[in-house]
Amino acid sequence: LTARLQGFGTTIFTEMTRLAIQFGAVNLGQGFPNFDGPDFIKEAAIAAIRAGANQYCRMSGLPELNRAIAAHQQRFYDLSYDPDSEVTVYSGATEAICATLQALCDTGDEVVLFEPFYDSYRASVTMAGAVPKVVTLHAPDFAYRPEELEAAITPKTRAILLNSPHNPTGKVFARGELEHIAGLCKRFDLIAITDEVYEHLVYEGSHVPLATLPGMRERTVLISSSGKTFSFTGWKVGHTCAPPALSAAIRCAHQFVTFCTATPFQHALARAFVADDAFFAGLIAEYRARRDRLCQGLRELGFGVLAPAGTYFVMTDIRPLGYADDVEFCRMLPEQVGVAAIPPSSFYEHPAAGRHLVRWAFCKTDDVLDEGLRRLQKLP
Amino acid sequence: LTARLQGFGTTIFTEMTRLAIQFGAVNLGQGFPNFDGPDFIKEAAIAAIRAGANQYCRMSGLPELNRAIAAHQQRFYDLSYDPDSEVTVYSGATEAICATLQALCDTGDEVVLFEPFYDSYRASVTMAGAVPKVVTLHAPDFAYRPEELEAAITPKTRAILLNSPHNPTGKVFARGELEHIAGLCKRFDLIAITDEVYEHLVYEGSHVPLATLPGMRERTVLISSSGKTFSFTGWKVGHTCAPPALSAAIRCAHQFVTFCTATPFQHALARAFVADDAFFAGLIAEYRARRDRLCQGLRELGFGVLAPAGTYFVMTDIRPLGYADDVEFCRMLPEQVGVAAIPPSSFYEHPAAGRHLVRWAFCKTDDVLDEGLRRLQKLP
Ligand SMILES: CSCCC(=O)C(=O)O
Ligand SMILES: CSCCC(=O)C(=O)O
Repeated sequence: LTARLQGFGTTIFTEMTRLAIQFGAVNLGQGFPNFDGPDFIKEAAIAAIRAGANQYCRMSGLPELNRAIAAHQQRFYDLSYDPDSEVTVYSGATEAICATLQALCDTGDEVVLFEPFYDSYRASVTMAGAVPKVVTLHAPDFAYRPEELEAAITPKTRAILLNSPHNPTGKVFARGELEHIAGLCKRFDLIAITDEVYEHLVYEGSHVPLATLPGMRERTVLISSSGKTFSFTGWKVGHTCAPPALSAAIRCAHQFVTFCTATPFQHALARAFVADDAFFAGLIAEYRARRDRLCQGLRELGFGVLAPAGTYFVMTDIRPLGYADDVEFCRMLPEQVGVAAIPPSSFYEHPAAGRHLVRWAFCKTDDVLDEGLRRLQKLP
Repeated sequence: LTARLQGFGTTIFTEMTRLAIQFGAVNLGQGFPNFDGPDFIKEAAIAAIRAGANQYCRMSGLPELNRAIAAHQQRFYDLSYDPDSEVTVYSGATEAICATLQALCDTGDEVVLFEPFYDSYRASVTMAGAVPKVVTLHAPDFAYRPEELEAAITPKTRAILLNSPHNPTGKVFARGELEHIAGLCKRFDLIAITDEVYEHLVYEGSHVPLATLPGMRERTVLISSSGKTFSFTGWKVGHTCAPPALSAAIRCAHQFVTFCTATPFQHALARAFVADDAFFAGLIAEYRARRDRLCQGLRELGFGVLAPAGTYFVMTDIRPLGYADDVEFCRMLPEQVGVAAIPPSSFYEHPAAGRHLVRWAFCKTDDVLDEGLRRLQKLP
């Protein structure tokens, strides 16, 4: 293993999902639903396979899908992107992040990340030869301190990577915060890379893409994916929207990372992105009910619940129950209680800041959430 | 675009497929079949989608697929790999190459490539911060000069990347060459990275994985994919077989490049790798007939045909027809003749070595091959 990747080890998702399977635990760890998205999307994938759409598609994405993504950005955010030169499709948002950083970062460039962060950010920055500069979102409200963000910016800063709605905290960045971040991007001529994969899972307020703020569209690489929105995480289709010069650069990396993405699922998702408003409204209503169910249950068990404004994760403080170490807690849980969760300290550069927190996923049917809560009553 | 990727531009596949579509050309360029693989594989994918196998699967691959790949290596090459610790699944062989180089190369390491090369090699080496050292396969027989390979190895050499059966030349490396390469790997303690995606498409002699040579299994990352063998290039599922320590390193990179690969297609390909011998024999017979048909036709047109021992590509010398520049020839062809092909000079570090050559793909049904040949009669 190269020096660059020393210390990255196996992602916590792999470790916890393995424990969940080993002990038959109710898996409230890794973020995938225990149900599938709508049948019309599945049937579109099946029709594409039957119709013979099984060979390489265009490197930048199936034209119909690029158009559907552009239409989606217009409809929800009033953002206009040209499907051919500004929208690009990847094998998941993780690949989009990897290709974006490979394309835009020179050796020694710095990229600002907010911790806790989805763990691929730090690794992808490092693989690109760049250096992560980490700004902390402070529990319990996960606000960042403006002066800490400003201090993280140096002459070497190339980009700020913003994830909102935010995994693992469930935070939706407020407009004031977005304006502050946008101001810094413009003042210091930085690129904004925005991971918006939970864009439709918002329960309080609303999701505002950073690219919609004045002067930001031209310097933002907007990343999202269809896995979370349409409940097909195993199809691995993500996308970017970015101005032509940035898109061309990222495609240069993308073509050598995976070249192109599974064709039949691109056909299916081209239908999904143009689903009617009722679909999106129904999605949010269902997830809101799941969120309330899990938060209520965890509260009754004595956890300190930091109710999320978005995403399908909830962070809890484990100290009220007498625990102090998230990793110990989450390693004990599958075997002793039959439930799996994620210890967020692995999402921090300084793990101490997350030691007292545990993340639970509520992208699960009611019976699974209820069974998980029932088992948690046996917590030692 | 980062300095690292300057000069890579858009792959020749994208450019030529775009021209093919624009001018309605018979596409003998990019290597994808105009037919699909067997129905039983498609039906297995459809069954997986219907059965709800649509969420993230294990980062290292669906257990059934890892087992099927291990069984395939045993059956065809007498190579034993542990499915859990030595087999890993990726979003295509291109991702496998990218992750392997990211995991194994430190900044400044050197990787030996044979030119002409599939263009992602050089880009992936460069993205990993390493330096390609290029050894030429000399037309018309595409042998390398042993002393040139030896001279390319320095104290900084980390790996030799070998592609056999070889794209774009159709060369199948001879046992004597493999022994020479293996000897150098052992003498200088190098890793071998072998791209074997055309392993089943061999018409003269047979494919010998470098890992089967004495002392090589423990230092080889064997890369292959299901796209070429089973005629589903658009499903994008590749794999590596490598000893546990190498596999662990590569997975560390893989988990941050794409994390995991489309689940339904992994279910389908788990069936494919254990297809009966008749399937594989039939595949080779069909491709041999296509090869002979295209080679014969090109010969009759006056091209200097360098008949391939493997892959689904044939290289031709265009000088007998009065042409001198492959790029000019291939840019003219779609519009003026209605056929697309690939100019191999973009697969050389020193393009001059490939200027007089043009690559044609024969992974096409007879009607398409015949129509392509018919149109080529109008060559100006
Ligand atoms: C590969 S896990 C992707 C992110 C996610 O779903 C999680 O944070 O659990
Ligand atoms: C992404 S193109 C993959 C390689 C290939 O098929 C070709 O060389 O044409």
